[in-house]
Amino acid sequence: MKIDLGRKTILYPMPVLMVGTYDKKDKPDLMAAAWGGIFNDNMVCLCLDRNHKTVANLKEHKAFTVGVADAKHVTECDYVGIVSANDEPDKLDKANLTAVKSTRVDAPVIDELPLTLECQLVSYDDNTEQAVGNIINVIADDSILTGGKVDPAKLKAITYDPVNHTYIQLGEVVGKAFSDGKKLQ
Amino acid sequence: MKIDLGRKTILYPMPVLMVGTYDKKDKPDLMAAAWGGIFNDNMVCLCLDRNHKTVANLKEHKAFTVGVADAKHVTECDYVGIVSANDEPDKLDKANLTAVKSTRVDAPVIDELPLTLECQLVSYDDNTEQAVGNIINVIADDSILTGGKVDPAKLKAITYDPVNHTYIQLGEVVGKAFSDGKKLQ
Repeated sequence: MKIDLGRKTILYPMPVLMVGTYDKKDKPDLMAAAWGGIFNDNMVCLCLDRNHKTVANLKEHKAFTVGVADAKHVTECDYVGIVSANDEPDKLDKANLTAVKSTRVDAPVIDELPLTLECQLVSYDDNTEQAVGNIINVIADDSILTGGKVDPAKLKAITYDPVNHTYIQLGEVVGKAFSDGKKLQ
Repeated sequence: MKIDLGRKTILYPMPVLMVGTYDKKDKPDLMAAAWGGIFNDNMVCLCLDRNHKTVANLKEHKAFTVGVADAKHVTECDYVGIVSANDEPDKLDKANLTAVKSTRVDAPVIDELPLTLECQLVSYDDNTEQAVGNIINVIADDSILTGGKVDPAKLKAITYDPVNHTYIQLGEVVGKAFSDGKKLQ
């Protein structure tokens, strides 16, 4: 039986995107965002409330990074999502996270996160509150690679559950894309 | 050690969004999209190549649905992602999927998919190829609910792995959002 849940912001999976920026004093900042994803070939889109410090930062430096939150750093990622740098300027230190300057864009790479997208800001729309970024490079920790390719079983990316407010790790491989469907052709 | 993977469209998790529309003859169509997600409160965003039949459909009917692909229907979802309705007008029948007219928007709900967003089209931008939709209602099958709420362990949503081209099911709960991070406060 079908049940109407009403007008709600529910979708699975939602990502946990760790958005790294520098503020106007070049201090690194990091926040968590679940509203966003791939926008187009080599482009990402983030929906970020215009009041976030991150929005001022990315307008100033025209760049940001997107780190993928992983099971190993759930507590750290949740913490930087809860606390604003406006209230706790040293939130990265408190979370024991290390910001390293990207060599490609004017934004910090979080050393502990195993996969990071270095992005040049294309636009931030004050009306829709949508930031669009060009992916310049993807950085992976060698610990998450198998044969030089990202291995999701090693990455252990987490997703945000918008209903029960939990983080869920990616699990079992259940199919092959552009392949399983051929059985029906 | 950090490894540069170059300019690539890599992110985890990517969703598997099953986009349902009617064509100009009111025939239901369904495609799979990995580029998209929540855009804002009660809004979704999909990046859809302007050549997709779905784009013509949603411009015509100003509506679409987004079904969440689940482990149970990997083959069916992959099939409708592989095959265009331009080549196989009866692709829904071939996939044994049942389209039911939404009572709220001019788009089909796929009965077999356990969670569906009914969306009114807000805009489709021919330059950015971005479709934005207002979520009017969320429909859930009662088989995926626990205590009236979506239960991800029952839903078994799948994600798309853009590197290895597999589908990965959501797994274990590894943390509580807006809670675990308080340990560091």
